[in-house]
Formats: sequence, structure tokens, C-alpha cells
Amino acid sequence: VCGDGRSIGMGKKNGDGEEFNFKFDLLLAAAYVSDAQYNRNVPFKTSPRAIRLYYFYNHWTMQAATYFFISVHLSLALFEKPALFPLPLLATSIAEVLCLTAFFGRLVHFAKIIPQMVFWKDTKNICIMVTIVLTLVDLILYRSLEAVNIHCIRWSRALRPVFLINFPESHQIRRAFRSIRNTLPDILYVFLLFTFSLLVFSLMALKLFGDRRVHSWQFLPVSSPKFGHCLPCSNTPGVMPAYDFNWWYSLYFITYIIINTYIFMSVFLAVVYNNYRKHLKNEIRKLAYLKRHKMIEAFNILKVKVGPEFVVEEAQWRRLVRTVAPDMSLRHLELLLRISDEGQTGRVDKMNFLRLADLLNIQVVTINIKRHPLEAWAPQIYKSSASLLVQKVVRHRIFVWVFDVIILINAIFIALDEKIPFISHAEWLFLSLYVIEILLKLYTYEPRAYFGRKQFWNWFDMLIIIAALVATVANATIQSASKYNSQQILDIILILRILRLLRVIISVQRFQVIVTTLINIGPTMLTFGGHVFVAYYAFAIVGMEMFHGKVQFFDPNFTAPDALVCGNPALKGSAFSRGRYCKNNFNDLASSFVVLMELTVVNHVLLLADGFALVTHQAAKLYFILFHIVVVVIIVNIFIAFILEAFFVAYSLEKSEVETAIEKKIQELGVGIQEEEVQDGKPTDHVDTKDRGDNKRKALEGLYCRIPSRKYRTVDTLLQRMCESEIAPEDEGPSLDVILNFSPSDIYPKNPNFETSA
Amino acid sequence: VCGDGRSIGMGKKNGDGEEFNFKFDLLLAAAYVSDAQYNRNVPFKTSPRAIRLYYFYNHWTMQAATYFFISVHLSLALFEKPALFPLPLLATSIAEVLCLTAFFGRLVHFAKIIPQMVFWKDTKNICIMVTIVLTLVDLILYRSLEAVNIHCIRWSRALRPVFLINFPESHQIRRAFRSIRNTLPDILYVFLLFTFSLLVFSLMALKLFGDRRVHSWQFLPVSSPKFGHCLPCSNTPGVMPAYDFNWWYSLYFITYIIINTYIFMSVFLAVVYNNYRKHLKNEIRKLAYLKRHKMIEAFNILKVKVGPEFVVEEAQWRRLVRTVAPDMSLRHLELLLRISDEGQTGRVDKMNFLRLADLLNIQVVTINIKRHPLEAWAPQIYKSSASLLVQKVVRHRIFVWVFDVIILINAIFIALDEKIPFISHAEWLFLSLYVIEILLKLYTYEPRAYFGRKQFWNWFDMLIIIAALVATVANATIQSASKYNSQQILDIILILRILRLLRVIISVQRFQVIVTTLINIGPTMLTFGGHVFVAYYAFAIVGMEMFHGKVQFFDPNFTAPDALVCGNPALKGSAFSRGRYCKNNFNDLASSFVVLMELTVVNHVLLLADGFALVTHQAAKLYFILFHIVVVVIIVNIFIAFILEAFFVAYSLEKSEVETAIEKKIQELGVGIQEEEVQDGKPTDHVDTKDRGDNKRKALEGLYCRIPSRKYRTVDTLLQRMCESEIAPEDEGPSLDVILNFSPSDIYPKNPNFETSA
Repeated sequence: VCGDGRSIGMGKKNGDGEEFNFKFDLLLAAAYVSDAQYNRNVPFKTSPRAIRLYYFYNHWTMQAATYFFISVHLSLALFEKPALFPLPLLATSIAEVLCLTAFFGRLVHFAKIIPQMVFWKDTKNICIMVTIVLTLVDLILYRSLEAVNIHCIRWSRALRPVFLINFPESHQIRRAFRSIRNTLPDILYVFLLFTFSLLVFSLMALKLFGDRRVHSWQFLPVSSPKFGHCLPCSNTPGVMPAYDFNWWYSLYFITYIIINTYIFMSVFLAVVYNNYRKHLKNEIRKLAYLKRHKMIEAFNILKVKVGPEFVVEEAQWRRLVRTVAPDMSLRHLELLLRISDEGQTGRVDKMNFLRLADLLNIQVVTINIKRHPLEAWAPQIYKSSASLLVQKVVRHRIFVWVFDVIILINAIFIALDEKIPFISHAEWLFLSLYVIEILLKLYTYEPRAYFGRKQFWNWFDMLIIIAALVATVANATIQSASKYNSQQILDIILILRILRLLRVIISVQRFQVIVTTLINIGPTMLTFGGHVFVAYYAFAIVGMEMFHGKVQFFDPNFTAPDALVCGNPALKGSAFSRGRYCKNNFNDLASSFVVLMELTVVNHVLLLADGFALVTHQAAKLYFILFHIVVVVIIVNIFIAFILEAFFVAYSLEKSEVETAIEKKIQELGVGIQEEEVQDGKPTDHVDTKDRGDNKRKALEGLYCRIPSRKYRTVDTLLQRMCESEIAPEDEGPSLDVILNFSPSDIYPKNPNFETSA
Repeated sequence: VCGDGRSIGMGKKNGDGEEFNFKFDLLLAAAYVSDAQYNRNVPFKTSPRAIRLYYFYNHWTMQAATYFFISVHLSLALFEKPALFPLPLLATSIAEVLCLTAFFGRLVHFAKIIPQMVFWKDTKNICIMVTIVLTLVDLILYRSLEAVNIHCIRWSRALRPVFLINFPESHQIRRAFRSIRNTLPDILYVFLLFTFSLLVFSLMALKLFGDRRVHSWQFLPVSSPKFGHCLPCSNTPGVMPAYDFNWWYSLYFITYIIINTYIFMSVFLAVVYNNYRKHLKNEIRKLAYLKRHKMIEAFNILKVKVGPEFVVEEAQWRRLVRTVAPDMSLRHLELLLRISDEGQTGRVDKMNFLRLADLLNIQVVTINIKRHPLEAWAPQIYKSSASLLVQKVVRHRIFVWVFDVIILINAIFIALDEKIPFISHAEWLFLSLYVIEILLKLYTYEPRAYFGRKQFWNWFDMLIIIAALVATVANATIQSASKYNSQQILDIILILRILRLLRVIISVQRFQVIVTTLINIGPTMLTFGGHVFVAYYAFAIVGMEMFHGKVQFFDPNFTAPDALVCGNPALKGSAFSRGRYCKNNFNDLASSFVVLMELTVVNHVLLLADGFALVTHQAAKLYFILFHIVVVVIIVNIFIAFILEAFFVAYSLEKSEVETAIEKKIQELGVGIQEEEVQDGKPTDHVDTKDRGDNKRKALEGLYCRIPSRKYRTVDTLLQRMCESEIAPEDEGPSLDVILNFSPSDIYPKNPNFETSA
């Protein structure tokens, strides 16, 4: 069936002399297609065994196991000295060796899938192997030295996040790391200039105000992207009083802040953002071309010549899809075929074949407008005029407004003193009103549509109310039994009550761009969390090795003299102990994380640096400065750049529609349905549809391709489809080598035009 | 000569029945051309008298007078109660009336130039008139009430900056104001959302930590774009100690900062930047089309039909250019004609005529490579081998490096203690080395080229050294006479010494993009200064009316009990008096400015708000919050957006060349010279040119069009030429009405592509 068009040189190309059989050809193509579908840029071996291994490698159990071992490995720090929950050294060592073995196994598995050359070229793999070896060496060294009672530092623990970064499908984290690596040369020059400017200002301060106890070094944290000016507050007597005796001092200070904070930090942001955008675009372009390249290779394997052009036979196409997606329903498959083979000629041409990966990614839904369960159960009552009136009221806009007003009144009541009985009783009224609202909505709307997958706010609403109900009842029970309120439960109820206020936001149309964009970038922001976690982990381990036990926290009611100096006499009279920062210590992993988190958001890096320098060594300051530069200057700027980018894309797309070729075709064929239409849960959209009778509903039933709503797309998806829409359908793209070596500096057009450049 | 093509309906169009004569036609065209040249979008009357008035209106004396009256009017606040230099009320009133008369005169002058309808449509003019009337009313009211001893508020003083904004050619300030006005609706929604989020967090804080003396309102300034987290420092006992007794508090605080500081402030920045970019582009596009439109109108007035096409006769063209630029030299005119009339056909075609305005803007320089004065004066000595060797050494790269190293050594010496005699003597050595360097450079390079208009660093170098020399000698004189050092002079010398260090920067190539961009946006940053000045002035006047005399500053050595509470018993025990903020008062204009400046850069808005609320009324807090929102949130974000934009344009142009059509043509004709080539002052570029003999230099002499260096272009210029290069030469552009109503929302392409949208 698929003889002619086959790529003859395939066997030689892969370097293994295996027999080409029909099944293998299909598997090979299937592997290419599924790879294009997942957008991974790993060229893999194409023997049937390798493909089976490849599927197994990507199986969810294997991935879950990897994540499990990674989390065990990372959480070992909780049990090792200095431990939150101490365990014997033997236990943690065995656990670590087990984890390392698992990582090694995973790596070996991966090596079996892809060609040797590619495996050894990939820095990720080298990185993992080196880390495994280093960790083992360190472990053995530490244990043997421990045996003869010499204590040394377990430095390899700081390398643990390496496995988190390099193993799983954490594109985003790796991209952020690449972004940092690529931005470094550019940022270095800004940083040098910035350091130079700091130096100049420090010199000036040293000479002009040196005798007035203002140390130039104290200016550093002022110049963070947090733009925090803690100078006048963190060091008493502070800077502003200095203005009392010298007007010029004020001028110096303001110039300093304008230059080093506003201007330099904007330049930092510009450099970081510029690089972020450049690399983001380059990667997306690379992925798009790679996908095209792989789809063409798969087509070349399966193509047969019919008339003047090459095509893929329908039977072949079916088998391919079956191999790629074994659990696809027959109706789904027929729908895809109808889209791929419009003319029903029994064959799929090249252009349609190239779109297969996208087509497989499109969600197919069964529109099956169900009646309301109550309607099925008791149609007379549900369809009675009273019931219809209730439904009409609930669907009406005013119903939403009334509840917005109720929520706002509720907000006022929350702010009032809850000791007044009237107010605490009113809370029961509000709660019952909310419960009634939800019940009414469930009565009116079809429950399964109301709690659809993307009905974020309905879920939110429901969960908040149920939780509040449970907590309030629990509290009432406890209160009636023991005459005391449980403070924890009261706090939870309060937070739930306040969260309820958020619902008002969704009623205002204009807030939706902002809120939707924020919700869309939420998941990606979490991967940034992962990134920050990696930095925190490494710094926490180092910090624990450096500062463990140097600072103690005593209960505030404990009045021993040591409590005032955080258990370390070196801190006597320092700002650190005076400000009661004793809880900011590195005595275990949890405390270290809290300290680092605070350092990120609050500007007392200086105070802590001074404090810890007192208890250890002046070099300790370096640790804090390095942390400040890595996390605050670089990561925070990338975070801001990421949010800016998301909003710029959201704004530039506000008025336009980006449709892929497939979506257009699906719409033309009338087999698509907009995601918004599926969401029956929205009350305002469907006023009166009930009255128009069941005919329309019947006509709508069937299998449809769901066209994702524009609202719920991430920046990546949007950029990717923009990029793909710019690759002409007949464009074969450059060769694989060229694609893999795309450089970000090619992105800028040689002749920038008015639209692009600003 | 120019009969046929004349616009017949001109008389009717202008509504005045004046005779059309040759001169008038020319004047009209000239007015159009000069208007296009200056890019002003005011349609004006076209009678000869109006055109004469128009020239007079734009004469530098009139502009200088306007600026003079504006500054007098603004500085009146220094002499009015509460005054820095008190003057009788009569004197200031007379001065104010005089200024208002001058403003009114200027307005009447303007009304004579442009058609009545246009005059009354322009908000600027209405605004000025209303302000004049209001100020007069207020003045009369105040004086008459003062006469019967009733004191009221002179509220109209806060309106004074209106004249600064609306009168002079302060495009940038007006654009920033327009930017704010246009951004307001968009920003309002983010602001509401932000306020809502603050409210939710405040409610939570109030309930959860209300009994622990942490007031939710104190969180506000934490959420400024300065990203300042003064919370743990400004209010003792602070927030961090609160963490001692509740771990959840820490979590709350970190969530608060991540959401309200990082995320919301990024969204603010995104909204502001997006609007800034949109409006900037729209205005530039509008200007470009307006220029095209006016040039076409001028062409239509002067055109004659020769053969199949309309052209402008050479004689007519000459007369036009003579009218527009009366003081142009004949050689300059011939050069422009050669560019406009390539084929020397005796007529200028439409395309070339349309470029006239740009052509007139191009600077023409006489390349007239002069010999070094010493060479002319004593050629034997200057050309001797020893002299040539000196010149060669000075021109060599190593010479620059040696002095960079000397500067760095100097930096180390500055940091050391100057009490050591060796070090203070070394400073004399460094100073003499720098003087020798400058003398050597002046010996080698032609002095007029060395101090060219754009040789910023040469000027900088020279001025710093001369000032340091003068100050050092003055100090030595004083010292030898009175045995005391003058501290002021020593401080100045020190600053000069440190500024000298900046020179090292220009030696490093990679710093140049950053430094050049910063220097280029310098002038525009100053107009932002003007903008901030306007806001400061208005707030200072209001602040003086509200808080005048409420807080007193006493000399720190003065130990009266009042000194500790800033002269106001209400402040007893407040953070305001404890922190010795007494000098932060609104007792005169200078103090008010300093306070507002500090509020902009330092994050103690809260502390001052609390303090001033104590001495006046709780409503005083509103003043500080409003200031914070206007200046810090909006203006600072626009400032950051502006810097970001400048850098994005600089980066996207790094690899490309944007040439206008004229520049291309000038290059083709070989009558242009790159600005870089003119700058003979650069040492490294011209190594060995001396040796190649005088022939090349001779060949270069003559009149050239100077093509501005890409390095020294502002964002506006760059965007403008990009936009112009996109208007096709034959594109007549839309009608005037359409142009004037261009909307920023048209800017976004309907189908954003991969390049533009992110």
C-alpha cells in the first residue's frame, strides 16, 4: 500500500540494519507525529523497540515515579542535620542512594530511546550524570570522614535542585534558566555600569558624609528592583534627620535614588525584557519549524503517488491515527477524517496531513444537550408556570446585580465589630442567602454544564460557600458544647467570607481582561515559583551550612539575658537583636526558607547581612549580596518581564482574532463549536433560549470540535499560532541543523518598520 | 510663471477677499512649507499680514518674553505669604496683573494668526482664557476681602502652571499630560481592582491582626511602584517582630506583597506603557501625515504643467526657499537645488518638492579642513620629527589606556585617607597629568574640531579639569593665607575628582549603547522634570495653604521643649516628631518642594500624612494619598515606560539602519558626509590620516549635507522617520479631518503577526 514514496535511506540513516516492515513504517511515522504533537525537540531512535520504550518513558507512571523520587530527594534536607525532624545518617544516606539510582535508571532509559550522539550532546544529560557522580563522591567522603569523627560540609546538597530542573517536563523553568544564561552577558555590562555608579556615589558619600556615620555600603539595597528605600528607616538615626544639618545631603540622596533606582532599574528591566522577548520568540519559532520538519518527514514515509501528487491513503491514515491515539472513539476518528479529507476522495493530501498534529490536539466534545435532571424526573412541576418564572428570574441580569449588592453589604458588615449580636446574626442571614442563590442556580441551569471544566467562578463560589457553611456549623457546635469559639475556625470563616467578595469582580465587564490575563498566566507563574524554589533551596542549604545555630530564637515571654541577643553575645547592641529579628535564622530548612522569602519581598537584606556578619565573618555579607542579585535583581525582573509580555500580548490581541488554518476549516465545515457556546453555565447568555423550544437544542446535538476560547490562551500558545500562521503552507522550512541553531539575534528584522520597533 | 496649477478657490476658502498676487501665493506656500518644517498642526490664516504676524509670533524675542513672564508669574509664590522673601501684597498683585496682561496679549496675537473657528476649538486657548479670568476674579476677591480684614484662600495660585503647560513649545510636557489623560480610563479599572484588593487585604488584616496594633491603612505605601517596603521599618514595633508570634502573619504579608506590589505594579506598568506607546505612535503618525498633507497643498499652489506632469519651476522654487529661509547662503541654496533637481532640468517635480521641508531641516556644513593653528604659525617645528612622534603617540590607543589606568589609580587614592601628606601631594601629580593630557590633545588635534558641538566628553573633560584646577589653586591660596581649608571648596574639588572617573566609561565599547541612550534621552528626561515641576508646584501651593506654620523647625542645638515636638504640642509622642522630621514642613515654597521631592523618592508618605493629620485634620491624609497616586503611581510609571521605550527602540535599531529617502539621495549624489566623519576629535579614527598627505584633505573640502549620526537620535526622530518611510511617495494621505481624528486604537493591526505582537 505504501511502497513508492517511502524514504529509502531510512535504514542507513539510523545506522541499524533492521528490516523495514509495514508496521514499523507506521510506528516511525506515528512517533514523528506524536513527537510533533508534544513539541519536544528530541530526535529519537526509530526501531520498534525504541518506540515502545519511548511510549513507556512518557507513560504517566514513569513520570509520577520520577517526580516522587525528586521530591523525596529534595525533602531529605528536612531530615538531615540541621534537621527539622532528625533521622539517623544511615537512613538518609540509603534514601539518597536509592533516589540517585532511580535517576540513573531514568537516564539509562532515556539513552535507549535517542541516538547516542544526540544523548551525549545534550547538556541536560551530562549535567545529571555529573551531579550523580558528585553527590556519590561527597556522600562517601562525608561518611568515611564522619566515621573517623572529622566533620565536613556536605556541599553536594546544594546541587539537588539540578534533578528538578533537568528531568521533568519543566519547559518553563528551563526556559527561565536559559533566559538568565542568555541575558547574563548583556546584563553584565549594565551591572558593571551600575556598580561603577554605586562606587562613585559611595566614594562621594564616604568623603562628604563619612564622619557623619552614614556608610556608603548601606546604600546597596536601596537600589533593588523592589525600589525599596529602607535607608531612612532601617538604620537609625537614618538619613532624613541628616537632612536637618545639611541641605546638600538631601540633594545627594535624591540624585542617588533617581539615578540608581529609577534609571538603572528601568535599564535593567529593559535589558531583561528585551532578552526575554528575543529568546521566547526564538524558541517558539524553532518549535514551529521543528514541528513542520517532523510532519514532513512522517509524510515522506507514508506517502504514495496518486496522479500528479503524493498523498497518504485513507487506510494508512486511519492506522496512523489509531497508533498515535489508541483510545480514540470511532466517531471522533471519522470527524477528523472528514476535516482532513474534505472531498471524501479516500486520501489525505500533504497540506492536510501536515496539520494532523494540530488536529489531534483539538478537543472533540459531544454536544449532548441534556435536560435538567428535575425536568426528566418531574416534567410537570419543572415546566409549571411558577417554576418557569423562577428560572426566568434567576437567568435575569438583575438577579446577579442583587447578589452583588448583597455581597457589598456583607463587606460592610464584616468591617463592623462582630461583638454586636445583630451583626453576628446577620452573618447567618448572608450565608443562607448565598446558599439559596446556589440552590436556585442549580435548579435553573443544568448541573453538569454549571460545573463545567472551565467554570472557574462557579466552582470557586460553590467551594467557598460549602466551606463557610461547614466551618460555621462546626463552630456553632463547638460553641454550644464548650461555650468557647475556636479561634482557628473563626479565622478560616473570616477569610472565606472575605474571599466571597472577589465574586463582585467578575460582574464588571472591564475587569475581565485583567482578571482573565492574570488567571491565564497563573499556571506559568507557578512554574516561576518552581524556579524561585530552586534558587531558595540552593541558598537555604548553603545558608544552613554557614549560619546553622549561630542565632537562636527564644520565646518572647522567656526573659533570659540570652533571649535579647538571640543567644549570641556578638549580637549585643546590634540592630539585628534590637529589631528582634532572632527568628530570622538558618537553623533548619523551614526557617531558612522563611528568611529567604522575607529577604525577597522585604528590604532588610542589609540588616540581616550585618547581623550574620557579626556572628560569623565579614564574608557572610557576600552570601546576602549574591542572593539579592540572583533572586531580587534577576529573577524578579524576569518575573516582571513575563507579566508585561503577557499583558502586551493580551492587549494587542484584544481587537483581533488569531485563528489557525484548522480552526478556519473546522468552522467552514460547520463541525466546530466555540468554547463560549459550550458553557451553558453563564446565566446572561441564555435568557429566553428555553422559550424557543427544543428544536434548536436537538439540532445542536452531536460530535463537535471544540475551538478553544481566545480568553483562555496562554502567551506561548498565542505566539506559537501566530508564528505558525506565518509559515506558508508549502514552506518546507530550513534543514534540521539550521532549525536547531536558530539564533535569537536573527529575530530582529533588518529594516525595522514603524509597527515592530516600538 | 505659475498660473495654471494655482488653486483657484483659495480666496473663497479663506473667506477674505484679498487680491491674489504672486507674492502672496509664494508666501502662502512658504507658510505651508515652514509649518510642515516645524511640524506644528495649526492651520493658519493665509493673508500676508497673518503670515507676517506668524513669523513675528515665532520670533525668538517673543518666545523669550513669554518664558520670562511665565517664570516671573511662577516665582511670585516665593514672595507671597507664606513667603521666603516677603514682599507687600500690592507689589505681587501688580506683578501678577502684568503677567496676566502679557499672557492675554500673546493669546490675542495668536488669535490673529489662525482662523477664528480653529482658535475657539483649541482647548489650550480656552484653558488659558479661563485661567486668566479665574485668577483675576480670585485676585480681586482676595484683595477686597483683605481690605475688610477677612482672610481667604488664594486658590487660583495652584492654577499657575497652566500657562507653562499651554503656552510654549513644550510638546513633551503636553504629550505626557495627554498620555495621562488618555491612560486614565484604562488605569482606572486597574486602580479599582487594586483598591479592591487592598480592601480585601485590609479587612483581613483588621480582623486577623486588629488587636495586634497593625493598621491596615498602613499598608498603602507599600504598594507603590517604588516597590518600597517600609512597613517593617517605618512603624515600630514593625511587622517582622509580629512574625515572632504568628507564622501565618508572615505568609499573609508575603502574599500581600507578591499580589499588590509585584503583580499589580507590573500590570500598572503594562497598562501605562501600552498606552504610552499607542499614543506616541498615533501622534507621530498624525504628524507625518499632516506634514505630507501640507506639502501637497503648497505644491498645488505653486505647480505648473510641463508636459504630462505638474512641476514647480526652478525660479519659483528659489523664491520659495528664499522666503522660508531668508538667511540661507547662495552655495547652500545651490546644494539643495542640486539635490531637488538631479537632472538639472530647471524644474522640481512633485516627489522632490514634497521633501523640501526635510531638506531644509538638514544641516549643511562647510567641510573646510583647517590646518592646526600651530602648523600654520610654525610649520617647521610642528612638522618636525619629534613633534610628529608626539602626535603619533597621542593618537595611539595606548595613550587612552594609560590615562584610564591613571584615573583608576586616582580613584584608589581618593578612597584613601587624605590626611596622609603623600596622598594629598599625589593629587597635585594627578591634576598636572590631566592638564598635560589635555594640552597634548590640543597640540595634536585641531582645537575647533576637538571642541565640536557634539563632542560631549571632550567638553566634559576640559571643564572638569579647569574647574578642579581653579578650585585647587583657590584652596591653596586660602590655605596659605589663613591656614584653614575652605570646606566648601574642598567638597567641590572632591566631587570634581570623582566625576573625572566617569571618563573611564567611554573607553569601554560595550557601555556605549547604554550611555549613549541615556545621554540621548537626557533632554527629554528634563522635560519630564518640567512635568514633575508642574505637579510639585500645584501640590506645594495647596500644601502651603493647608499646612502653613503648623510645623516649625528649630535648630538641633536649640533645646526648648517645643523643638522636640516641632513647635506643635499635637505632635507629642508621634512618630513624626520622634523621627525628627520637623524640617519636613510647608512653611515656604522651597521647603514644600523639598518635602514633595522626598515624598517622591523616599517612602515615608505615611509618616508625614499621620503627622500632618495630627496638626490639622484627618482629611489631610487625602492630600498625601492623592500626591502619591498622581506623582508616584502615574508619573513615575510614565517615566519608566519612557525609558523602556527608548531602550527598546535603541536595541531594535542596533543592527539596522533607518535612512530617509533624502539621506539616501544625498549619499548617492555624494554631497553628504556622515556626522562621525566630521568629528575629527575622535583620536582613534584618524590614526595615520596625517601621513597620507594633504591631497585627500583638499579633495574633501567644500559644502556638504551633514547626515546626522544614528547614535544621537532621539526616540521621536527615529519613530518619525520610520513612519515616514512607510508612507509611499505617491500616497496623498487621507483628508485633513481624517488625519486630525486619527485614533490610537487604529494603530494595532487587525491581524497581528509574530513580529509585532510581542
